[in-house]
Amino acid sequence: MPLVSIDEIRIAAKNVSGVAVRTPLLPALWAGGTLALKPECLQVIGAFKIRGAYHALTTLSHEERSRGVIASSSGNHAQAMAYAARAYGAPATIVIPEGAAHGKVVATEALGARVVRVPPARRDLAAAELAQEHGLSLIPPYEDARVIAGQGTVGLEIVEDDPAVDVVLVPVSGGGLIAGVAAAVKALRPQAKVIGVEPELAADTTESVRRGERVTWTPEQTYRTIADGLRTTSPGALPWEHIQAYVDGMVTVSEQEIRDAMRLIALGSRIVAEPSGAVATAAHLFHSAELPPGRRVAVVSGGNVDPALLAEVLSGRPV
Amino acid sequence: MPLVSIDEIRIAAKNVSGVAVRTPLLPALWAGGTLALKPECLQVIGAFKIRGAYHALTTLSHEERSRGVIASSSGNHAQAMAYAARAYGAPATIVIPEGAAHGKVVATEALGARVVRVPPARRDLAAAELAQEHGLSLIPPYEDARVIAGQGTVGLEIVEDDPAVDVVLVPVSGGGLIAGVAAAVKALRPQAKVIGVEPELAADTTESVRRGERVTWTPEQTYRTIADGLRTTSPGALPWEHIQAYVDGMVTVSEQEIRDAMRLIALGSRIVAEPSGAVATAAHLFHSAELPPGRRVAVVSGGNVDPALLAEVLSGRPV
Repeated sequence: MPLVSIDEIRIAAKNVSGVAVRTPLLPALWAGGTLALKPECLQVIGAFKIRGAYHALTTLSHEERSRGVIASSSGNHAQAMAYAARAYGAPATIVIPEGAAHGKVVATEALGARVVRVPPARRDLAAAELAQEHGLSLIPPYEDARVIAGQGTVGLEIVEDDPAVDVVLVPVSGGGLIAGVAAAVKALRPQAKVIGVEPELAADTTESVRRGERVTWTPEQTYRTIADGLRTTSPGALPWEHIQAYVDGMVTVSEQEIRDAMRLIALGSRIVAEPSGAVATAAHLFHSAELPPGRRVAVVSGGNVDPALLAEVLSGRPV
Repeated sequence: MPLVSIDEIRIAAKNVSGVAVRTPLLPALWAGGTLALKPECLQVIGAFKIRGAYHALTTLSHEERSRGVIASSSGNHAQAMAYAARAYGAPATIVIPEGAAHGKVVATEALGARVVRVPPARRDLAAAELAQEHGLSLIPPYEDARVIAGQGTVGLEIVEDDPAVDVVLVPVSGGGLIAGVAAAVKALRPQAKVIGVEPELAADTTESVRRGERVTWTPEQTYRTIADGLRTTSPGALPWEHIQAYVDGMVTVSEQEIRDAMRLIALGSRIVAEPSGAVATAAHLFHSAELPPGRRVAVVSGGNVDPALLAEVLSGRPV
């Protein structure tokens, strides 16, 4: 499969302009060293996912959008798709696995999408069947060049705003974000290092990189982490191609480090990071010696967090 | 005294570029109606004050900066001045009243400023004496055209980013922020309404507007509010000239409304507002009927909040 090009990412940047917030880099003086945060938690739906979803919809024909779009997601991609479809006046169907948080169903429906609930094991199959049956365009959360190009606009903006950036730290789940960011950063500033970050408890991509081949963890393993956005059990095939081509290393962080980073991000930079959104900053804070030196940017990928968890983390109460 | 002009605000915008974060407008879908937040809590020192402080330093001569600058503040202006002075390599002296939170002293000293502690009643006099004695340039927090021009860049950016804005909601303490914002907004979009917001418990400017003359509350009155950045007991003289010329109305909010707004801002827009920073959003949320209709922008002026208070507010625990 061809890798996503910087030209596709530039087109995506034009497409998402005015829909995705042009997030600024926030210098994090409190973090020591030279760190800036890329606060994707400031997007309307609370995460970078709006970039890939909206760009993907833009590449569809008017007729395709009129028939409708479908996605399978229990997380931020669901709301991103619902929001992007509503912006286009396109009907959206979101397949959400049974057992997902009720709040996510409500939030997705509030954006005008039809939610179909299926047993977790059937989610991808159900989405494919519904797509076929009703002529809907399926937009996967990361196994898709259009989505990767959209997420890559995060990397484009980072280099635009700090042309001297040395290290870009990116949370990794299915790998769509780091694939796009790495494609952009390596095209625009090849000497910059792109480092993926995972929880220790969901380190499937870290292990994949170490072995040189995609490995799959079990949901029983990855669901142990508090970082609910990073529980995917293996990197996607297309993201994996980009990771092999462009990513310079992987770092893992502990559950306590994730909580500590959430607290420090909220108090130091005045933004709310969800656990998944805090891992890249945690890598800078607690694993600096494992990282290349220089001007670092950490992507805060999202901020959709349960209020009780956020309050607990802020109060510094033990788990 | 002449009012600050849009030309001065444009010059200030050039000066603060690259030092102040160019904060985006964040659409707040969760807030009902059409509201966007201007998140000044994202500034490096956590508040808009960096704009006025840095612009004021820029207008000094090299020699004046070399002799040093001085300010009297127990709040965000102290850190803004310390940060701006450090950026210029200028020595900074900050007069902080005894009794101010220890954390603010530490934060100001961490930015390289010399802190002088004096009894609260002597703070302004002490600053003036030290300025005279040592040839330091005094930069007041709001009673200063340079500072007002710097704060006005917030208004300039709001109209740049939403040329169709109808209502701009601004927290009011000494009045430097609303003076600058109103000067910019009325120059660029005269039909837009600029509304000041205060806590009910520190509504000195609201009462001043109602009476048509500056009134002064007592510290015993204004110190009742949780919004510690809005406890100034009367609008400044120069800000008051701008308020009379440009501001279309005032709204007050309750202590509980401030807390509720802090919680909703954190969860809905993923930013941390300090109590003072939440009042403008609280006006939209809880006093919408008192406000002009249309596209509203609420300035979230700062996000420097005690972690325990933030945790308490997030958990929704009663006071």
